[in-house]
Amino acid sequence: MDTQPLRIVIVGGVAGGASAAAKARRTNEHADITLFERGPHVSFANCGLPYYVGGDIAQRDALLLQTPESFWRRFAVKVHVYHEVMRIDRTLRHVEVRNVQTGQRSLHPYDKLILSPGAGAVVPELPGLPARNVFTVKTVPDSDAILQWLRDAAPTHAVVAGAGFIGLETAEALHRRGLRVSVVELQPQVLPAFDPDMAAFVQAQVQRQGIEVWTSRALAGLETELVGADQVVRTAVLDDGTRLPADVVVMSIGVRPELRLAREAGLRIGATGGIAVDDRQRTSDPDIYAAGDAVEVVQRVTGQAVRMPLAGPAGKQGRVAGANAAGGDLRFPGALGTAIVETMGITAAKTGLSEREARAAGFDVQVTQTHSLDHAGYYPGASLMHLKLVADRATHRLLGGQIVGEAGVDKRIDVLATALQAGMTVMDLEELDLAYAPQFSSARDPVIMAGFAASNVARNEVQTVTCAALQAERSAQRPVQLVDVRTAGEFEGGHLPGAHHLPIDELRGRLAELDPDADTVVYCKVGFRGYLAARILSQSGFGRVRNLTGGMLQCDAGAPA
Amino acid sequence: MDTQPLRIVIVGGVAGGASAAAKARRTNEHADITLFERGPHVSFANCGLPYYVGGDIAQRDALLLQTPESFWRRFAVKVHVYHEVMRIDRTLRHVEVRNVQTGQRSLHPYDKLILSPGAGAVVPELPGLPARNVFTVKTVPDSDAILQWLRDAAPTHAVVAGAGFIGLETAEALHRRGLRVSVVELQPQVLPAFDPDMAAFVQAQVQRQGIEVWTSRALAGLETELVGADQVVRTAVLDDGTRLPADVVVMSIGVRPELRLAREAGLRIGATGGIAVDDRQRTSDPDIYAAGDAVEVVQRVTGQAVRMPLAGPAGKQGRVAGANAAGGDLRFPGALGTAIVETMGITAAKTGLSEREARAAGFDVQVTQTHSLDHAGYYPGASLMHLKLVADRATHRLLGGQIVGEAGVDKRIDVLATALQAGMTVMDLEELDLAYAPQFSSARDPVIMAGFAASNVARNEVQTVTCAALQAERSAQRPVQLVDVRTAGEFEGGHLPGAHHLPIDELRGRLAELDPDADTVVYCKVGFRGYLAARILSQSGFGRVRNLTGGMLQCDAGAPA
Repeated sequence: MDTQPLRIVIVGGVAGGASAAAKARRTNEHADITLFERGPHVSFANCGLPYYVGGDIAQRDALLLQTPESFWRRFAVKVHVYHEVMRIDRTLRHVEVRNVQTGQRSLHPYDKLILSPGAGAVVPELPGLPARNVFTVKTVPDSDAILQWLRDAAPTHAVVAGAGFIGLETAEALHRRGLRVSVVELQPQVLPAFDPDMAAFVQAQVQRQGIEVWTSRALAGLETELVGADQVVRTAVLDDGTRLPADVVVMSIGVRPELRLAREAGLRIGATGGIAVDDRQRTSDPDIYAAGDAVEVVQRVTGQAVRMPLAGPAGKQGRVAGANAAGGDLRFPGALGTAIVETMGITAAKTGLSEREARAAGFDVQVTQTHSLDHAGYYPGASLMHLKLVADRATHRLLGGQIVGEAGVDKRIDVLATALQAGMTVMDLEELDLAYAPQFSSARDPVIMAGFAASNVARNEVQTVTCAALQAERSAQRPVQLVDVRTAGEFEGGHLPGAHHLPIDELRGRLAELDPDADTVVYCKVGFRGYLAARILSQSGFGRVRNLTGGMLQCDAGAPA
Repeated sequence: MDTQPLRIVIVGGVAGGASAAAKARRTNEHADITLFERGPHVSFANCGLPYYVGGDIAQRDALLLQTPESFWRRFAVKVHVYHEVMRIDRTLRHVEVRNVQTGQRSLHPYDKLILSPGAGAVVPELPGLPARNVFTVKTVPDSDAILQWLRDAAPTHAVVAGAGFIGLETAEALHRRGLRVSVVELQPQVLPAFDPDMAAFVQAQVQRQGIEVWTSRALAGLETELVGADQVVRTAVLDDGTRLPADVVVMSIGVRPELRLAREAGLRIGATGGIAVDDRQRTSDPDIYAAGDAVEVVQRVTGQAVRMPLAGPAGKQGRVAGANAAGGDLRFPGALGTAIVETMGITAAKTGLSEREARAAGFDVQVTQTHSLDHAGYYPGASLMHLKLVADRATHRLLGGQIVGEAGVDKRIDVLATALQAGMTVMDLEELDLAYAPQFSSARDPVIMAGFAASNVARNEVQTVTCAALQAERSAQRPVQLVDVRTAGEFEGGHLPGAHHLPIDELRGRLAELDPDADTVVYCKVGFRGYLAARILSQSGFGRVRNLTGGMLQCDAGAPA
């Protein structure tokens, strides 16, 4: 060909940018593709950083998935690390690039530009900053710096600000390194993306395993002392005056999209604070695409734009942006926000909307809480899994799922994510034909059990109430006939105040002890015996019977530790 | 109420019958529900039996999920074990029941009858039978008998007839007990439900771990000697004359529906040899329902009736039959045949149609084979997973999936089963938003990678060929320019005969060495570099380029061991 090759310039070389470069090349063998990355690495595994800090990943090289050289050899993509794009000139269609090491500036023309600048860790303005021993966990050098400090200063007390995914992973990493760790979280719960009744299981486990959790509190300041030329933190002070010993502080309170380039270029920024793109990842300038943590993403459940700084969507957006910039035609329909975190022996995962998010989006919400073993109880090693389904009461469509447990959580959240994408109802979950052998699942998988429970409600076979709703009713002095159908031993071990005790296996013979005209709520440990009891009562002349979804286990989880 | 309660009689008390009884009670508190079970146990865990034989499940009681007493207390269901239903009188609407222990017979009236007779293990008529040390693995007493024999006779050599799910699980169980185990299978592969190219991975692993596998052979006879009053097998003779030492023989060549009752009662039996039912699990008699291994099931992918003797569908059918018999209205829309087996450190799972089944059903099939790590390679312990997608070439709809690997197989098959139920296309798989943390998955989960690979074909970005198809072409002397794009070390370690060697990273500079007009097939180890090579060549003037799906790994798997 004697025409000029298409010039594609990519800004940023992590998940979105690296995917874009590779897909652009596969789409267009003849394009001239150049990638600029401000940092030292291209395509590194940022989700692995806490595990590198904790020692699970021993080899630093394992995190570095590609090098500029390997990208050139394999994809004929020119990768420049330590090169920061400073400015986009949309009229002349070039970018101004600064060599971070030399300071030298140069202009690079483009026909199509792909922005994948990512998001930076938010570090609050605090008294005591900057200090030598305050870190973030966003890049390989960040992690190197933490490890260097652990080696050099042998710190013993860590404070992690933020109890989100990275915060809890980092807390575990430092705990594994032998430090005493305190986590400080502004919200009244850990994992603010989850509903409080699910986050409670995680918080209890993390605390049981020896991590201190300070919720509803913020870092107010850091007390430092001068060591050599450096300010070094010794104490973290919370906004309620609590003083925590701290010789290493990690900030993981969130990320903020890198918008400077896009904003200065006049590209449209969405209401959520991310770069606005269409389903081809095109910005308001048809020659500029964008992907990754800096862009808005369509939440598929609601169709609304949200921010969703996750590696999976970032890579897929990059692939779409790369294909389209190179002359192809791919679409990115949005994502569900599926995410998972493991910390201190417990795993929490989420897909779609939480109850809180679903209510905020205007749905009339049906909540189902179940607790199932991750595999058949008759096969060794089974452990309990807590599962919360959120559905639309009107259409029975699944809106979201949250799961907490020791094992098998990743499988069930992926099943729910697939069901969500398909627009399945809770009745569709009943019908799922999932693989069963006793080491992997039960004849009725936890997702299917949740489907049964939710469908029973959808079909009006039983009515349910959540623990939170029941507590609200009781606080409002609404009279309720509360019936605990567990065994005597279970009842004596703790029960809801004012409950009648009537074991399920004796219920049929002792109906006369209850008032059929009362508003009745039955409960057991996990919800299944309660369901049976509700069926017995509602077919025996009881006017209004509800079962406590998730049972005592759910109420206990929400109780203050 | 002064009306006579609805009388429901249930025949059979394992998965289907027990589920039916419990759901019938929940649906109808006032029904009179009676369950007859021929054997000694109700609701036992038949899928656990091989693990009980192998010792993973140490407690026999763990297999016994319910007792007649617990069923009565919890569900007010009268359970009679050791009671066999001999005859159904549809006119008088009663069953004739025989007490297996006393021989006494009695009549029991029903308004609604639920049949869940199950399927019995097939034992062929062979010279040498019956013998003291020939067993099946269908019931708890079966397993007790094997364990007793292991204790009493200290056998050293086992022959397992049939290399299906139960056969391979039992082979492992006996191997764990220290026996030398040979498996004999009539088909030319283990796991006949799988395509041969996937079963090959399992067979190789099982053999590597020290189990002898004799495919394309059948047991022809058993040579016995008299020990006390018993005939005891010492040698198993195969149909090709091979003689295998055998002091324990397990028959796992299949199951046969228990149709006698249904047939004698004149109920319609389907063409597949199962009791015909509608989507409410109703037989040709509107007062008789049926569930479990003896009934026909709709394969949801094709809409055709098949037999599917699996615990998951059995339980769900029982639930539907129980609800409907008791006056409710539930539907069973069919199943996918999702199944999983773990043996000797490898797991194989399947959902929907195999390639063979899809072709037999008349589909123009698109096959995609990928090999992905079960979780991020940068996190320790990742292992390779082999994944085969079968899709409809015309509509791109997913038809089935098969997966073999060491870890994470159960998760991916469940995702595919969910996708199948939803009628997803391979492009829908690309868009899945699955949970990613490095210990659980990769930013591009194996299912998503498979979706990418299949979608690239569906969008005509690349053409592929399976190893079997390529071999057929070469056998037919069709000229092919075969290009191996792996490294020199990989190439030297073994390659396809006649392949040019041209490493992917050198391909762009050495195009002149290839003939652009030839019919070209490129390949690498797993298929990804081959895909890149195919994109380079097809954009560089090469007329017809195909990539070997699954790469050398797939060809090696199919090669004779």
